[in-house]
Amino acid sequence: MKRFSLQTSTRNQMLDILSDAQKALDSILAESNNQNSNGACLIYCPHTTAAITVNENYDPDVKRDMLHKLQQDIPKDDNYHHAEGNSDSHLKASLIGTSKLVPVENGQIKLGHWQGLLFCEFDGPRQREVWVSFLSAG
Amino acid sequence: MKRFSLQTSTRNQMLDILSDAQKALDSILAESNNQNSNGACLIYCPHTTAAITVNENYDPDVKRDMLHKLQQDIPKDDNYHHAEGNSDSHLKASLIGTSKLVPVENGQIKLGHWQGLLFCEFDGPRQREVWVSFLSAG
Amino acid sequence: MKRFSLQTSTRNQMLDILSDAQKALDSILAESNNQNSNGACLIYCPHTTAAITVNENYDPDVKRDMLHKLQQDIPKDDNYHHAEGNSDSHLKASLIGTSKLVPVENGQIKLGHWQGLLFCEFDGPRQREVWVSFLSAG
Repeated sequence: MKRFSLQTSTRNQMLDILSDAQKALDSILAESNNQNSNGACLIYCPHTTAAITVNENYDPDVKRDMLHKLQQDIPKDDNYHHAEGNSDSHLKASLIGTSKLVPVENGQIKLGHWQGLLFCEFDGPRQREVWVSFLSAG
Repeated sequence: MKRFSLQTSTRNQMLDILSDAQKALDSILAESNNQNSNGACLIYCPHTTAAITVNENYDPDVKRDMLHKLQQDIPKDDNYHHAEGNSDSHLKASLIGTSKLVPVENGQIKLGHWQGLLFCEFDGPRQREVWVSFLSAG
Repeated sequence: MKRFSLQTSTRNQMLDILSDAQKALDSILAESNNQNSNGACLIYCPHTTAAITVNENYDPDVKRDMLHKLQQDIPKDDNYHHAEGNSDSHLKASLIGTSKLVPVENGQIKLGHWQGLLFCEFDGPRQREVWVSFLSAG
């Protein structure tokens, strides 16, 4: 497993992490002399108020609209009991999911044409970590 | 990795893809002379307005109700900025998730008794693709 | 693949299953003489009205708030057609997701500092099962 860090800058944010994830995968495969491997790459967020998704990374309005609608339906304040004021962030993290598994062909993360790999910050700004693992096809 | 195509027929739809996914897995395992393998099968949707889920595939009203409630809470028009008119589709894709990983025993995808493997169209009708990978137990 | 059972006690509930999942993983790795393996562990829920998530397991109010907000936005009764009265449970299962994949290092499930592995009951109380598989890093 390899890790990388990132710094988010607002409370709700989606950041492209594909090149960081590919670098981590390159380094895993280089260490195992396995550069052309097939399988899948697990992109794991070890936090409880952030998540990973795969979605469009072309028009920034898509990310804006997704975050805006999530915030509208799951507002920061809403009769929550948890004293830290971030229950909305925890729920959004569980709805989007703490990890994504993406295909790997010949050592390369393989996404659909319009897809990006997005770190989803729901309680920033914060320093965050992402864990990357490779799983083998056989 | 193997791919198969499907054609959706309405804007929001859930379609059973278990037999297509099993056929793709059969073909992967046959090529690797590995027909009785154990592990997991990654069912990956390379699109940004569709998703994969596992849920009941017996009473069609379950699929109808899930789609109806999603559409009610995340309507097509809702103050979005993205000009293509499908921001709801992108958000639903990220909430349901672009892939599912399901167990494989002796070369067979293993679901719970009432579970089906469902392709979720959120911006159809369209021609779509699904990518299938096998990951080995060890 | 190994299985374990659990009993839920209310309609909506989140229960920590990390130690059960680790025991199942221990038993898988012991059988394959592979105790220090690296890879990932698939925690799979074979039901259609329950799910698995990774989130905070420290302040019980986080679980309470997530369940409360989900119930508020996706109420039990809401113009559904499915006659069993649990369409909300099916949708919540698909939104949270029927499985999670978590990293394994040296045979140990590796979560973030504040993360717990949570079984999410959305139509209890019921007797439930969880399926655990190990996927190898290479």
